[in-house]
Amino acid sequence: MTTRPLRFGLIGTGRIGQVHARSIAADPDTTLSWVCDPFIAGAEAVSERFGGAVTDDASEVFASGDVDAVLIASPTATHVDLIAAAIEAGIPALCEKPIDLDISRVDSLLPLVRSSGVPVALGFNRRFDPAFASVQSRVAAGEIGALEQLTIVSRDPAAPPAAYVAVSGGIFRDMTIHDLDMARFFLPEIVEVTAVGSALFDDGAREHGDFDSAVTTLRASSGATVTIINSRHSAVGYDQRLEAFGAEGSLQVANAPTSLVSLSTATVVEGKPPYQNFFLERYAEAYAAELRAFVRLVRGESSTSPTFEDGRAALILADAAQRSAEERVSVAVDLG
Amino acid sequence: MTTRPLRFGLIGTGRIGQVHARSIAADPDTTLSWVCDPFIAGAEAVSERFGGAVTDDASEVFASGDVDAVLIASPTATHVDLIAAAIEAGIPALCEKPIDLDISRVDSLLPLVRSSGVPVALGFNRRFDPAFASVQSRVAAGEIGALEQLTIVSRDPAAPPAAYVAVSGGIFRDMTIHDLDMARFFLPEIVEVTAVGSALFDDGAREHGDFDSAVTTLRASSGATVTIINSRHSAVGYDQRLEAFGAEGSLQVANAPTSLVSLSTATVVEGKPPYQNFFLERYAEAYAAELRAFVRLVRGESSTSPTFEDGRAALILADAAQRSAEERVSVAVDLG
Amino acid sequence: MTTRPLRFGLIGTGRIGQVHARSIAADPDTTLSWVCDPFIAGAEAVSERFGGAVTDDASEVFASGDVDAVLIASPTATHVDLIAAAIEAGIPALCEKPIDLDISRVDSLLPLVRSSGVPVALGFNRRFDPAFASVQSRVAAGEIGALEQLTIVSRDPAAPPAAYVAVSGGIFRDMTIHDLDMARFFLPEIVEVTAVGSALFDDGAREHGDFDSAVTTLRASSGATVTIINSRHSAVGYDQRLEAFGAEGSLQVANAPTSLVSLSTATVVEGKPPYQNFFLERYAEAYAAELRAFVRLVRGESSTSPTFEDGRAALILADAAQRSAEERVSVAVDLG
Amino acid sequence: MTTRPLRFGLIGTGRIGQVHARSIAADPDTTLSWVCDPFIAGAEAVSERFGGAVTDDASEVFASGDVDAVLIASPTATHVDLIAAAIEAGIPALCEKPIDLDISRVDSLLPLVRSSGVPVALGFNRRFDPAFASVQSRVAAGEIGALEQLTIVSRDPAAPPAAYVAVSGGIFRDMTIHDLDMARFFLPEIVEVTAVGSALFDDGAREHGDFDSAVTTLRASSGATVTIINSRHSAVGYDQRLEAFGAEGSLQVANAPTSLVSLSTATVVEGKPPYQNFFLERYAEAYAAELRAFVRLVRGESSTSPTFEDGRAALILADAAQRSAEERVSVAVDLG
Repeated sequence: MTTRPLRFGLIGTGRIGQVHARSIAADPDTTLSWVCDPFIAGAEAVSERFGGAVTDDASEVFASGDVDAVLIASPTATHVDLIAAAIEAGIPALCEKPIDLDISRVDSLLPLVRSSGVPVALGFNRRFDPAFASVQSRVAAGEIGALEQLTIVSRDPAAPPAAYVAVSGGIFRDMTIHDLDMARFFLPEIVEVTAVGSALFDDGAREHGDFDSAVTTLRASSGATVTIINSRHSAVGYDQRLEAFGAEGSLQVANAPTSLVSLSTATVVEGKPPYQNFFLERYAEAYAAELRAFVRLVRGESSTSPTFEDGRAALILADAAQRSAEERVSVAVDLG
Repeated sequence: MTTRPLRFGLIGTGRIGQVHARSIAADPDTTLSWVCDPFIAGAEAVSERFGGAVTDDASEVFASGDVDAVLIASPTATHVDLIAAAIEAGIPALCEKPIDLDISRVDSLLPLVRSSGVPVALGFNRRFDPAFASVQSRVAAGEIGALEQLTIVSRDPAAPPAAYVAVSGGIFRDMTIHDLDMARFFLPEIVEVTAVGSALFDDGAREHGDFDSAVTTLRASSGATVTIINSRHSAVGYDQRLEAFGAEGSLQVANAPTSLVSLSTATVVEGKPPYQNFFLERYAEAYAAELRAFVRLVRGESSTSPTFEDGRAALILADAAQRSAEERVSVAVDLG
Repeated sequence: MTTRPLRFGLIGTGRIGQVHARSIAADPDTTLSWVCDPFIAGAEAVSERFGGAVTDDASEVFASGDVDAVLIASPTATHVDLIAAAIEAGIPALCEKPIDLDISRVDSLLPLVRSSGVPVALGFNRRFDPAFASVQSRVAAGEIGALEQLTIVSRDPAAPPAAYVAVSGGIFRDMTIHDLDMARFFLPEIVEVTAVGSALFDDGAREHGDFDSAVTTLRASSGATVTIINSRHSAVGYDQRLEAFGAEGSLQVANAPTSLVSLSTATVVEGKPPYQNFFLERYAEAYAAELRAFVRLVRGESSTSPTFEDGRAALILADAAQRSAEERVSVAVDLG
Repeated sequence: MTTRPLRFGLIGTGRIGQVHARSIAADPDTTLSWVCDPFIAGAEAVSERFGGAVTDDASEVFASGDVDAVLIASPTATHVDLIAAAIEAGIPALCEKPIDLDISRVDSLLPLVRSSGVPVALGFNRRFDPAFASVQSRVAAGEIGALEQLTIVSRDPAAPPAAYVAVSGGIFRDMTIHDLDMARFFLPEIVEVTAVGSALFDDGAREHGDFDSAVTTLRASSGATVTIINSRHSAVGYDQRLEAFGAEGSLQVANAPTSLVSLSTATVVEGKPPYQNFFLERYAEAYAAELRAFVRLVRGESSTSPTFEDGRAALILADAAQRSAEERVSVAVDLG
């Protein structure tokens, strides 16, 4: 263990890769030593702003000898191979969600992850949001008694392009997966999934047999239930709320206001401006905290980083939700 | 049509019967002419406070010649026969929900209701709550665009006695039925029901194979969905909220505050006292408005009273929810 | 002491007289036995709805032998004589504020009030508002430590007619007087008054040398201060707020919402409908509670009715505010 | 004019100087070239974190030839001389408030400031708070009609040490001065000041003849009034609110929440954690925006930086408030 900054190799420089580059550059405990993207101009642009050597070949990063950890923010289809390569090189990896859209590929990697001892963390950033994290720890501390019903409202500002929908794996694997992991943050042992999906407004969803709206109900081994309400659009801005209802009270997370100002007139009182409109803005603090947790994991300290198995569990739940929504049955799951 | 007060026969003088007695006495358009209960002391107590002749025999009310309408607030098992008797006597009836716990008994009455022309209204009081009614009419007026997701949170302050649970017909037919009707208030054409139930805290529910917590998801013919979150208890008081989420915005109904006062200290800011703890308090205005709507119905004026068929539809949905929760499948329904 | 209903003589049947008639009729502990107004049609209309014999001569009420108390809701200029007549007849009186616009007339009555032993209460209804009353008792109980700063915002929906302004005695004696009494509800011993007035929007105020807006600061003997912010109009509806700021926390009274519904759209979130627009609506409960307290006073029970001396103190403060606003000095007052 | 970063000399490295050092280092348009403090260890510590040459002699900064602007964050008593030195060196200055505690010293500098053409800005950071700035511009745009009553609540978390109070110039010149400038942000032409002060809880204030609580009322030339409510302590955290009340509506600035989480239990619902407890946290964005505005001023672009004359006006108002509170009279002021 050392206290010099961890040297990161960043693989993938799209929107989310850039977020991580900024976090790595801003955190005194981390530094960017390699930036990799087959689209080399992307890597160069990131390197210019945040530092690091540039390559279009991830194997160069793993072989370089001067990275202490990799951050995998490349397209989903590359995750399994990159995690495997990281493990083989003995380099801890923080990988964006989902691990893969195909559970069999995830499962094929599982033995290696389990046996290797190389830390692999999953990028479920919302666990690190100060509000959600606070509620989870207060629930765990018993502040509202036994948790009985968890309600998650999660709506994106606007539907993604049809081309994205086509390869997304569907709303459950692409969008709900965050909420499925949030459910497991509170209630890890989910045993049953029931989902109802609709295609109400998005042509891309209709074209590709996907849903743009969904309600997913999970049952935990304790009997507690989780309700997840998703929509691919939201006129009022990014809608991210949670209610933990327990035997002795409730904890609620409200939407993030964009201003302290409210207006009252003869027609409307206490009106506020719309909510934040973008996940990067809403979860800016969460991304930074996610990185700090991963640094602790790499350093062998106590860490709350979601694991590879958390990533696998979320995909199993998403698969079950997809099947439930298609076949109109509740689907039992075994995350054991 | 006349403008003298409608003379009511009240049948049943339990808790809800007393509410109606008070409403009838307070409304200048209605008067209490008969009070009926086999438990004659109950009828006498109501008569003393709010007027009316007393009997323990409902047939006396129907035969009296001086009632213009009956309000049926007797035990559920008596509703079908009393409605039938009212129709045969040509006397309009406002009947408490549910019509019956057995859909076949409801269906057996349907032809008579349809053919008779005698007004029969169902006591779904929440449709008359100023807040819910306002949201429904604003949604109908297009204020938030197409309705996509309706979320209803409905939690009672405390679970009923085990003896009540035993004969209640179960949480869906007893409690959720209000919310199922609320769902149809917004989206009359429900085509599918999916429900998940749990027995988490109430021994009465466990003993009688019932649930104390439930999540019910409905799909409307438009593809819009309704999520109903129920619990038989709520530490914070009676929890009755609704969110109508549309393509262009949301309308929300908050819990009713019991005070305008909030307290801020070094540990908690803007804390308020708990919500109202009882449905009679929360829905006091709704009961009065329900009565006014029924008076209009009886007088042949335009009225928003829920119909016998609304009562039947709610029971069909409750039956479907029960079956869904037991068999772990989504259940298609035909309310046509 | 008796528990039969108190028989009231109501003197004055204008807007506020009608409010009291309704309260007297609705309260099981009170009944209306006489209704008096020189404008006899007004008395008759009230009598028809709420009962009571009719007269245009107050002396008939006092001599009737069948009134246990009088409620004086006639024009301000008649209050002193009517209170004197009530005392002479040995009949307890509840008198609307202000006692008079002229402190010398009030003072001339003071010896009689003090020596007679006949209960005389003043109609400062806001002390009986559930929210203000709750805050006052919680402050008195020490819930927020020593009270340091009290802030009262009190704005009417719309300015009164110019003709009313002409005879009102000015904003401080007519409108602020309620807030001055509220200040004394929390801090009875006021020792100094500083006021700033403006005529910003109301032609009636300008014509008659009155203000339509005012800020009044009071200093209590403890050093605590009270700030009263008044306006004769408010676009958002009747604006009645209070903040008690203490050494250990704050208690706040918010405006009364008219609905539980809020609307969120792409431009405004959580917007609510305007506040109640009228004092009768806002203080309906307060008027009823004021009557109940007066009944206790008449019956010799413990009572929180504001006294004649409270009415006198409020007028002294209003006079001081008027002088402060005119002469631009702080005015010391002695309420002892 | 140039677009290379402005080179700053920072004079004074106490708490507020460190805030500015951080802002200068973080802003891509500014860089720290000199750090000056007679307490040289303070200058060195700042220089190590944020760069810049170190000196204990401000004249070295002015003579260095490599500063484009100075930021004066030294003790108040040094401001006038340092501003004069900056003007003589032709170097634009951003000076912390107040200019001085003695208006005659401020006035003696006025001719030089007016004639020199060298930009001098005052550090009234709150004008740059996003919420206050938004309300000011919306009021200026007429969104609530004519501004009639402005209410500012401004309470510090805890009283400063007695030693600080001793040299602070008193609550009006030290604390209220921020609010007096905020008043002029909305209503520049203040013509009268009325203030009431109390020493309720702070021994330091009592010892030094100062107040710990104050209410200040300003009258603008338009007749609009401003009410400022100050306290040196606040149990609930830093209390910074504002209400602009206009003919057609109100705009309100709420306190800044520290979390999106609220807790509801059987005793308190919707309780939130206390507000931010420190001005650096509350106004972090404002300090950065203040710097950006000053950069525009230096570059000759359109800028909203408060001027030397704004600083002088605030001191005149504070002096008037002090006199009003002492002599119990309203004090006319001429800011022309």
